[in-house]
Amino acid sequence: MSPARPDDEGPLAVGVDIGGTKVAAGLVGTDGAVVATRRRSTPGRDVVAVEDTIAGVVTELLEVAGDREVVGIGVGAAGFVDADREVVLFSPHLAWRREPLRRALSDRLSRTVLVDNDANGAAWAEWRFGAGRGETRLVCLTLGTGIGGGLVVDGRLERGRFGMAGEFGHMVLVPGGHRCECGNRGCWEQYASGNALGREGRELAGAGSPVASELLARSGGDPSAVVGAVVTQAALAGDPASVEIVREVGHWLGLGVANLAAALDPGTVVVGGGASEAGELLLGPARESFSRNLTGRGYRPQARLVGAELGPLAGMVGMADLARHEATA
Amino acid sequence: MSPARPDDEGPLAVGVDIGGTKVAAGLVGTDGAVVATRRRSTPGRDVVAVEDTIAGVVTELLEVAGDREVVGIGVGAAGFVDADREVVLFSPHLAWRREPLRRALSDRLSRTVLVDNDANGAAWAEWRFGAGRGETRLVCLTLGTGIGGGLVVDGRLERGRFGMAGEFGHMVLVPGGHRCECGNRGCWEQYASGNALGREGRELAGAGSPVASELLARSGGDPSAVVGAVVTQAALAGDPASVEIVREVGHWLGLGVANLAAALDPGTVVVGGGASEAGELLLGPARESFSRNLTGRGYRPQARLVGAELGPLAGMVGMADLARHEATA
Repeated sequence: MSPARPDDEGPLAVGVDIGGTKVAAGLVGTDGAVVATRRRSTPGRDVVAVEDTIAGVVTELLEVAGDREVVGIGVGAAGFVDADREVVLFSPHLAWRREPLRRALSDRLSRTVLVDNDANGAAWAEWRFGAGRGETRLVCLTLGTGIGGGLVVDGRLERGRFGMAGEFGHMVLVPGGHRCECGNRGCWEQYASGNALGREGRELAGAGSPVASELLARSGGDPSAVVGAVVTQAALAGDPASVEIVREVGHWLGLGVANLAAALDPGTVVVGGGASEAGELLLGPARESFSRNLTGRGYRPQARLVGAELGPLAGMVGMADLARHEATA
Repeated sequence: MSPARPDDEGPLAVGVDIGGTKVAAGLVGTDGAVVATRRRSTPGRDVVAVEDTIAGVVTELLEVAGDREVVGIGVGAAGFVDADREVVLFSPHLAWRREPLRRALSDRLSRTVLVDNDANGAAWAEWRFGAGRGETRLVCLTLGTGIGGGLVVDGRLERGRFGMAGEFGHMVLVPGGHRCECGNRGCWEQYASGNALGREGRELAGAGSPVASELLARSGGDPSAVVGAVVTQAALAGDPASVEIVREVGHWLGLGVANLAAALDPGTVVVGGGASEAGELLLGPARESFSRNLTGRGYRPQARLVGAELGPLAGMVGMADLARHEATA
């Protein structure tokens, strides 16, 4: 966000964050400062077009860098990346199915490219520069379309045996519940994400209740146009029905965090992503629900549950820093 | 189980496993072989009596060792042990509340004692000597009264920030579901444990249905006497109603394992403990449910889900080996 500080003369790195709706790329300094950014819409479910888009923004940023050294290019993909970080095996929200993304991008750019899960990038960024600094057991949740998850243990991203650790959003929390884009039912992210805010908002708006008047006004009278961001903005403006929806989503968020605390026992849980923009309207109820549902509560230390500090650029910053970290290690 | 091999002339260690119903202790060789064992009932909810019992069996085993060196004493407790491994902060199934167990036992025995969660001991044993050998990302589940959990990552027990990682059994899987001894509702262990087998068996037997005749016959006609082991034994003998109960519990087991795979991405999940004695009657349905509920299934490698190899002595063997490992590291 902030311009590079004059004292940051170290090598630059390029970070790219590919989400379900947008591709965000940036030129990032050693202190995490973003020197330049590029932004595109994710071209639907066309795999080749997505790769064209990524190669295009990276090439532009390399030109911006000019004579300054760029030591790494890190690409965060919203999908399950294999242990070798070569292939995006599966993406619940994009068209990748066993897509050899690293090779494809390296070939196009004639440079080494690092590929990792996008939420791993955000977790790394929050650990390096944000709300997770100094934490030895960090869980980072990125609430967007779904829930992205990353886990930093003793300063190392924990990727699991097959590269797919941290898919917290696809833990089943409500057996037989809402259908998830991953194919299952009742995944946590169906209850605690931007999509969950949107679904609840649309349902309320569609029911024709007068309590939904503010939501309808904000979506041109069309219930189907109520998306998560509309609910968040209405809640921040004080609309009681939207505040209730955000509170309900916060409840589910806290319950899932209690489950992660039982399993992983983190010291800090950082919550970022677009759906976290409601701030304390979301995090307050989440903390309440976390405390209420934590096993052994009252007899154990409790993890901090805090908002992210790096905002929407976290994924990009983290992927750039990871690429630099691995290139210079 | 097996006697010490003649070539195992390394130092011995004592391991103690304190469960909700029994205290099991043993003298263990460097190869994991158990040289001698002692066994007592856990004296109810009397904290001092439990410590007396532990000190008593350890003293007996030190006498058995005679002139052979005993390098460590490891005590596994069914509770939440703090990060310093000094205090049992909370036990869902025993009376410990902020109990300084390590100090109490060290003082009584005038020796250094290591205290850890009992399921961590079992996980360590399966990684060192059992079904988890060579695995870089191991989850071990001990199905007894509840679900004990342990996590071995790159040859190190992962204890979390506050010492309480691996309490998988207390992840909520059914919001608003069965009340758990930890105080919450819907914990996984209420659906996939010896207690779950017993509860379902008692309910069936109490309903007076003719399908429960075998269970009733095995419990003297008293529905309230149907415990998990009765259901397991009846299932192994071919009783269809008991097979169904074990299958149902296996289903819940597999669903929870799918959640752990989403979060932790282990390479192997080992299932041990008394309630796993139904073997494939339990593990078959668990594998089916795991495969059916794993997010990204079909596009990702899948963890092995296998039975434990060390049997009921795993906790004791693991605690002894951990104590030796730390004493000689």
